[in-house]
Amino acid sequence: MSIKLGPNRYGKAENRVVRVTKTGDTHEIRDLNVSVALSGDMDETHHTGDNAAVLPTDTQRNTVFAFAKKNGITSPEGFGLLLARHFVRSQPTVHHARIGLEEYLWERNPVRPYSFVRSGQETRTARVHYDGDNAWVVSGLRGLVVLNSTGSEFHGYIKDQFTTLQPAHDRVLATEVNAEWRHVSFSSEWDKSYLKVRACLLEAFADTYSLSLQQTLYAMGDRVLNACPGICEIRLSLPNKHHFAVDLSAFGLGNDNEVFFAADRPYGLIEGTVLRETAPDAGPAWD
Amino acid sequence: MSIKLGPNRYGKAENRVVRVTKTGDTHEIRDLNVSVALSGDMDETHHTGDNAAVLPTDTQRNTVFAFAKKNGITSPEGFGLLLARHFVRSQPTVHHARIGLEEYLWERNPVRPYSFVRSGQETRTARVHYDGDNAWVVSGLRGLVVLNSTGSEFHGYIKDQFTTLQPAHDRVLATEVNAEWRHVSFSSEWDKSYLKVRACLLEAFADTYSLSLQQTLYAMGDRVLNACPGICEIRLSLPNKHHFAVDLSAFGLGNDNEVFFAADRPYGLIEGTVLRETAPDAGPAWD
Amino acid sequence: MSIKLGPNRYGKAENRVVRVTKTGDTHEIRDLNVSVALSGDMDETHHTGDNAAVLPTDTQRNTVFAFAKKNGITSPEGFGLLLARHFVRSQPTVHHARIGLEEYLWERNPVRPYSFVRSGQETRTARVHYDGDNAWVVSGLRGLVVLNSTGSEFHGYIKDQFTTLQPAHDRVLATEVNAEWRHVSFSSEWDKSYLKVRACLLEAFADTYSLSLQQTLYAMGDRVLNACPGICEIRLSLPNKHHFAVDLSAFGLGNDNEVFFAADRPYGLIEGTVLRETAPDAGPAWD
Amino acid sequence: MSIKLGPNRYGKAENRVVRVTKTGDTHEIRDLNVSVALSGDMDETHHTGDNAAVLPTDTQRNTVFAFAKKNGITSPEGFGLLLARHFVRSQPTVHHARIGLEEYLWERNPVRPYSFVRSGQETRTARVHYDGDNAWVVSGLRGLVVLNSTGSEFHGYIKDQFTTLQPAHDRVLATEVNAEWRHVSFSSEWDKSYLKVRACLLEAFADTYSLSLQQTLYAMGDRVLNACPGICEIRLSLPNKHHFAVDLSAFGLGNDNEVFFAADRPYGLIEGTVLRETAPDAGPAWD
Repeated sequence: MSIKLGPNRYGKAENRVVRVTKTGDTHEIRDLNVSVALSGDMDETHHTGDNAAVLPTDTQRNTVFAFAKKNGITSPEGFGLLLARHFVRSQPTVHHARIGLEEYLWERNPVRPYSFVRSGQETRTARVHYDGDNAWVVSGLRGLVVLNSTGSEFHGYIKDQFTTLQPAHDRVLATEVNAEWRHVSFSSEWDKSYLKVRACLLEAFADTYSLSLQQTLYAMGDRVLNACPGICEIRLSLPNKHHFAVDLSAFGLGNDNEVFFAADRPYGLIEGTVLRETAPDAGPAWD
Repeated sequence: MSIKLGPNRYGKAENRVVRVTKTGDTHEIRDLNVSVALSGDMDETHHTGDNAAVLPTDTQRNTVFAFAKKNGITSPEGFGLLLARHFVRSQPTVHHARIGLEEYLWERNPVRPYSFVRSGQETRTARVHYDGDNAWVVSGLRGLVVLNSTGSEFHGYIKDQFTTLQPAHDRVLATEVNAEWRHVSFSSEWDKSYLKVRACLLEAFADTYSLSLQQTLYAMGDRVLNACPGICEIRLSLPNKHHFAVDLSAFGLGNDNEVFFAADRPYGLIEGTVLRETAPDAGPAWD
Repeated sequence: MSIKLGPNRYGKAENRVVRVTKTGDTHEIRDLNVSVALSGDMDETHHTGDNAAVLPTDTQRNTVFAFAKKNGITSPEGFGLLLARHFVRSQPTVHHARIGLEEYLWERNPVRPYSFVRSGQETRTARVHYDGDNAWVVSGLRGLVVLNSTGSEFHGYIKDQFTTLQPAHDRVLATEVNAEWRHVSFSSEWDKSYLKVRACLLEAFADTYSLSLQQTLYAMGDRVLNACPGICEIRLSLPNKHHFAVDLSAFGLGNDNEVFFAADRPYGLIEGTVLRETAPDAGPAWD
Repeated sequence: MSIKLGPNRYGKAENRVVRVTKTGDTHEIRDLNVSVALSGDMDETHHTGDNAAVLPTDTQRNTVFAFAKKNGITSPEGFGLLLARHFVRSQPTVHHARIGLEEYLWERNPVRPYSFVRSGQETRTARVHYDGDNAWVVSGLRGLVVLNSTGSEFHGYIKDQFTTLQPAHDRVLATEVNAEWRHVSFSSEWDKSYLKVRACLLEAFADTYSLSLQQTLYAMGDRVLNACPGICEIRLSLPNKHHFAVDLSAFGLGNDNEVFFAADRPYGLIEGTVLRETAPDAGPAWD
């Protein structure tokens, strides 16, 4: 037959695990969404339905919860590494594991040491790969919405027969930061690393005088790489959340960039990678 | 004909207006979603399509943006009152205006005085009615997610032939607070009032030792009314975001309320009103 | 104390139940989302956390699944009536039950008599109330998206200082039909009734030459009431899904209502009720 | 500097264009969401904000609408190819264009030849690449929800210390089909091709007696490739929409696969590729 099975993977997706750690009345909480995807000797289940090589997704779910108990959850990246290594090392038919993780962030409600409030707009993310020999870790965040109400221009662009845009010498620049960064070396201080990258992204967004969202994107990536030697590559996806100054002249009113219509669609979408010259091959890190 | 037109309203919904106020380089931002709904002499447009009494929704949108420029936006409630009065007072065929408002909250990015980060999980809300004589204002919030990892029990309930639930003497209590409160008297300090109510809700959620989510609901409402004399009624809708302790005994593991499965559906939904004995008739406030 | 508990209800929301009925290899399927809300003697659980009058939401869920087995699901309305009566009649502390239902529609995949494909854009809905003496049934649908690419005008409206809209003598009219209708008398032929109302709504939308969306709304309601003697009232919520003809003149191109930008926000929202003069008081039907 | 710009692209995303074609009163409608992404000589805008090589996303949007007028929309794939070629051929700094398209499907409302109803659950998709020399076209669909109420088993799998799953000898199999397929040769009959693939997917889902969702996935891909010589590769992503038979034994009721709880999360996720041995290198087709 000239038809064959190509790349494939399977697993239990979106296991919502919450782990509480108690020191007397003072509790800590980690709130994760864990997705497991395994690959290996899976030809038979595709061709004949023989499942002898298949670790059921139900068992994967049980494993996520059991590991949360046995090992605790110190970070999304650390928990992902534990799980990925477990699946590959314990199952001869599983050659590769990919663990995708989202973390929902909480802050303390100061009234009680076991009371919490969901915080922030953004979701912290991680994806971890392990193939029996090597591990790859990508950390990230998404949904971090930022806005500069000045400090942005856009002009000097190509004009063709479909151009109607006027140059802008002062505009709102707003985006939702979706970023992922690849680690070239690991320490176990994933939480500290996350906070450092987040701070770099916010700082670079605010203090880049922007002539294009591309320029801001590059500045954000550059800032992260300069500050974090353990990171070799960062990928950013920045929707340009257009804020159009409303023309109020028909009503005898000026508008010196004071009143904006926040548009939904369409939107500009700027995607780019910033990396070190020395970044090693990414392997499956971004899959 | 025995068929007639009943209650009706129309308007431009979800006008996304962002208002920037500048003091040198230091900017303030208010970010709203404004929905207008008008009613009045609208029989003809329904029966014959004669629009002589209809103020187009397009004009309503223009009005929202023009008022944002002329008057600024000091709060959702204040902006809603301005708009509601304008529509009723300026159009003889419009007898009643309802303005629905959502506010998206931002905090400062300290790097620059014109840079902002979307903050918090919750959306602040308001609905304002004006009928030419009276105004009604309801303020609110939704999407404020809170969790106590202990301090909650549930037992002593009815048992019938469909009961399988076991009593709980220690459980996670988590909910998404959706609340609206009606003002019996107005000052213009809407922002201060909002922060006070929000603080009461968080405090009461955390320091109520809970035997049922209903008990927590009542305590939250009671706390708000005790702290805020200008508020006469509060309505709460609290989904019980179930966190089920995972049974790990098959794997030789205990689980002393440490590992939870955060479930999506179904969920308990607890809805209730707390009000003063002296609360005046609500009129159209909640419509 | 001058603070008291007002109206309240509680229950298990969004029980996703799928019921398969088998006649040999030929299967039937009903796919529902059932939300229970009960009220009655609930003061104690709010004030003290004493749950002696509380039927747990967990038990309510069990009941939904057990009734699906014992009684089958012949329609959302019929299933809702069964459940509502059960809760009120079996529990002295429960005085009122409200059952909300959504039905997801499937069509047969003709390849096998037990194979199905989710069909249509709309969700069928029902809400049922029972208070021990009387029952109320409201049926509905939402998410039925329709569009006429001509046959619609809009002009003759009020002009004020904020008017910029130009009259339209030919426009696209598109909306998402969200409708609910109240039954004054019941038969058990709920499915037949649903299909008849849906057909009336589609017919009236298409063959009303429209001078305003309000006119179309009224025609849709009127058509339903004329065709269905058992229905006394219908409520429609019709977002005007704006399709703006794009101005292509800058590119030397005309646009005779051929190319449209389908906008998201803001949108017009037209809400109205059409009812019989003889409609009885609605009681809690719409709660 | 050891930091550099890596792969990048930018463009106007989610242009919602509706194209009406009229033959007297009989209208045709195509309803698309078009996302443009361009890449080329974009180093300067990233490094300095010099936009001399940048075709603004605003201009891209205008181009989408102008092309819809000038050329009509005969299919997502055809429209994407037109646009991709235009951007690369007309702009020396643009070396590669990727056009992503979604199509929302409508059926006729038979009452009037210009009246339509949104149909089906699924969204048709396409992605088109052009680099000046070659074009790549991937077609697809997503959101096609299917269910077999019998004809599925799952057993014979690996057991380890975390296994609790019992073998199933009769179960519901339900999934949401998300599929994309790569064309090795093009004709212009994209609509006919789409319908053929959709029919193959539905047929293979229904008439495969399934011992694993992987087996069904492979059968679906195999069916498409056997029926469609112009397609060389298909990728499927099939969430296992779990329907758990509810244990009603505590209530004295059996459940012979009649009553199911339709779960949301977690879910199994089965992803796989089926391709021809002779499939050419995919190049950027899947990017």
